[in-house]
Amino acid sequence: MSESVAETLGHFVAESRLADIPPGVLHEAKRSLLNFMGGAIGVAQTAPVETAVKVLAPLSGPAQATLLGRCERVDVLSACFVNAIAANLLDYDDTHHPTIIHPTAPVAPPVLALAEDRMLSGALALHALLLGMEVECRIGNAVSPGHYARGWHITSTCGVFGAAAASARLLGLDAAQTAHAIGLAASQSSGNVENLPSAAKNVSVGNAARNGLFGALLARAGYTAAPASIEGRLGWARACGDEPNLDAITDRLGQHWEAATNTFKPYPCGIVIHPVIDACFAIRARGIDPAAIRSVVVSGPSLLLERGDRVVANERDARVSIHHAAAVALLFGRAGIPEFEPAAVFAPEVVALRGRVRAECDPAIPPGAARVVVTNGAGAVHDVTVTAARGSLERPLSDREIEDKVNALVAANPVRDPAAMTASVWSLEAVTDLRLLLASAASPGAGP
Amino acid sequence: MSESVAETLGHFVAESRLADIPPGVLHEAKRSLLNFMGGAIGVAQTAPVETAVKVLAPLSGPAQATLLGRCERVDVLSACFVNAIAANLLDYDDTHHPTIIHPTAPVAPPVLALAEDRMLSGALALHALLLGMEVECRIGNAVSPGHYARGWHITSTCGVFGAAAASARLLGLDAAQTAHAIGLAASQSSGNVENLPSAAKNVSVGNAARNGLFGALLARAGYTAAPASIEGRLGWARACGDEPNLDAITDRLGQHWEAATNTFKPYPCGIVIHPVIDACFAIRARGIDPAAIRSVVVSGPSLLLERGDRVVANERDARVSIHHAAAVALLFGRAGIPEFEPAAVFAPEVVALRGRVRAECDPAIPPGAARVVVTNGAGAVHDVTVTAARGSLERPLSDREIEDKVNALVAANPVRDPAAMTASVWSLEAVTDLRLLLASAASPGAGP
Repeated sequence: MSESVAETLGHFVAESRLADIPPGVLHEAKRSLLNFMGGAIGVAQTAPVETAVKVLAPLSGPAQATLLGRCERVDVLSACFVNAIAANLLDYDDTHHPTIIHPTAPVAPPVLALAEDRMLSGALALHALLLGMEVECRIGNAVSPGHYARGWHITSTCGVFGAAAASARLLGLDAAQTAHAIGLAASQSSGNVENLPSAAKNVSVGNAARNGLFGALLARAGYTAAPASIEGRLGWARACGDEPNLDAITDRLGQHWEAATNTFKPYPCGIVIHPVIDACFAIRARGIDPAAIRSVVVSGPSLLLERGDRVVANERDARVSIHHAAAVALLFGRAGIPEFEPAAVFAPEVVALRGRVRAECDPAIPPGAARVVVTNGAGAVHDVTVTAARGSLERPLSDREIEDKVNALVAANPVRDPAAMTASVWSLEAVTDLRLLLASAASPGAGP
Repeated sequence: MSESVAETLGHFVAESRLADIPPGVLHEAKRSLLNFMGGAIGVAQTAPVETAVKVLAPLSGPAQATLLGRCERVDVLSACFVNAIAANLLDYDDTHHPTIIHPTAPVAPPVLALAEDRMLSGALALHALLLGMEVECRIGNAVSPGHYARGWHITSTCGVFGAAAASARLLGLDAAQTAHAIGLAASQSSGNVENLPSAAKNVSVGNAARNGLFGALLARAGYTAAPASIEGRLGWARACGDEPNLDAITDRLGQHWEAATNTFKPYPCGIVIHPVIDACFAIRARGIDPAAIRSVVVSGPSLLLERGDRVVANERDARVSIHHAAAVALLFGRAGIPEFEPAAVFAPEVVALRGRVRAECDPAIPPGAARVVVTNGAGAVHDVTVTAARGSLERPLSDREIEDKVNALVAANPVRDPAAMTASVWSLEAVTDLRLLLASAASPGAGP
């Protein structure tokens, strides 16, 4: 009898050796972690995070784990939920392009919570984070693109597997227990796309982090799952409607690192819209007068239109709107956090320019690319096509650019020692006790 | 714009009046609750429940809610998880036949936990329980039979909607908030059939109860969901592969009570196997000598074979095995808790008779029925067909039979005052403070 997928992953996660992992791969995991922490901190005091804390804190057990960018410490499961929703809240986190998973949001929270509570080293945490993300992205590859297209919010549905794997590693589970933790994730996988423009998205992302850890704790205590929970006839993948491509999970496992293909967003909005913004920046750099723009035609592949062609009624809409992104990019030459906040979303000149933007499907334009044609009142035409946006795998953000992004986020919600936080992440293998990193990332008002 | 499903259900749940509900319907809800409590209590000290408590108790917040049949009190969310897995553990709980949902296990735990913590009356709790079960069963009807057939564990996946609705009612949410609680459940729905013969089943059932309440707490605090979370193009039902039959959710809502068609199991095993047991009892009653049985042929519709034709390696297998159920029914004339425990599962005479049982598909036999043909060594043939098993909607257990079942379960794990517990359930509208009921159902060693 050959191994099940969960069993193969169980061996991989339990038996991986840090020394066998190329430094470049580990560095990518650090970039993911730093980007994650900035994202979570930046919004940690906003209403959706406040609400989650207000609900969970009174039900929380011991003060085991830090809430990034806040004062409270809560039990490890509750911390997972809150930190995950914060990291993913602005749609500003990372992207694994083949699946459109945001890999770090569901996986880093249990890593940080367990490492803090158990006083583990940065090396252990970094290794567990990478392994969890690898499991998550590979399972995502096995069911993409059908899974998301059918309505499954893949960051949530696959994130729980990554959270389980990372937690299993940090808890020191053996290969069999790790396989069970991953199998228990199959029965906890949820989250749908219809609900994305609402707080329900937070709930499924937060649950992915929380339930991955929960399953690993149960597996450590003796709970088991069916061997074929992922690929069986009545297992997770097929219940979700997919004939899984199992090779995508197991092929070159431990040699090729899918997690190291993670990318980081320069703009806090839907990833498919990024080439639109870059094209608008290029046009604006030619010295056009935004007030004189008569029309903006954005064309791109069907995915761009499906995700980005919408009426803007609120901030959430704006963050996935071609029209809004083009308008602020052309008007302000910026597409940062302020440009997607209510003041910008409802600004009269933004509303007016949004109304002059038209989105068109052009199947000849490849995925990841977009064309923007701006015509001014005098009939002058600016026509720019961007094939690889800033932040894509072809044009990755530099470490310095990620730091700048994190600094901007932290400026919105200061933490105790942002410089120490960033330095600790870059030298994570040398951090002997992860409590130091978490302390630097808490609100200045937090206890010692 | 017409109402979404969640909005319609939100109005139904928030605006239902107890006085409008026929006493017979309320009585069915009491039968469900008593049967639930017996099931949860009976196994409350067994390993799978112990394990869940061992994991959750150290992470629990305030001691708000009783664990049935145990000493501990934990926070309301943790209590939901533990009480739900206990109630469903033996596959001895209730069954809504059109969907094969076990309706009470995911819904009663948040009702009991909230009512205890908030010192609510039995009338409020009974009403909320009924409303939650109604939402759960109707959503189940809308996606049956494809949903389960595809691999979704419908008790878990639909249970979370019922738990959310019941919690919303007890928390006093208005129609809009209730709709959001139900919509948040759509992003928390999970559990697969491949994992049923493992502890992963417990996890998805427990999460259904826990997450339904969690979503309602979040909705009360301001979280929202998309209106069409259930029926939208990328919503829950279609992501799960189903074109939902929305009429099944909304038709005669508040007039026809689907929850009142709930049924109760006389035997702690898969419901499809029950007519096999009744047929074997009838044959045994003719005075046959079990030792002289040469062959047993069980035939039935394809569903019986799909669910019940399996190799028995452990207790979980035995509880869904045609072969095991026929063997113990013929040998002992009983099919209670002891007959599905390891001592019976591995008894040599049981193993031997199991080996002489053959299962055959006969599409001419209708769903819910089974035929058993026993041939003895002398060639005498006994041929019995049962079309409606004991406990089915056609032959429901009497109140007294449910009490007897509960008493047998409680005998396995005594509680403080089983007589008061049963009496309180039968007169639930008169119970002024549900803490009294919970106190009677705790372990005798529990605090006051």
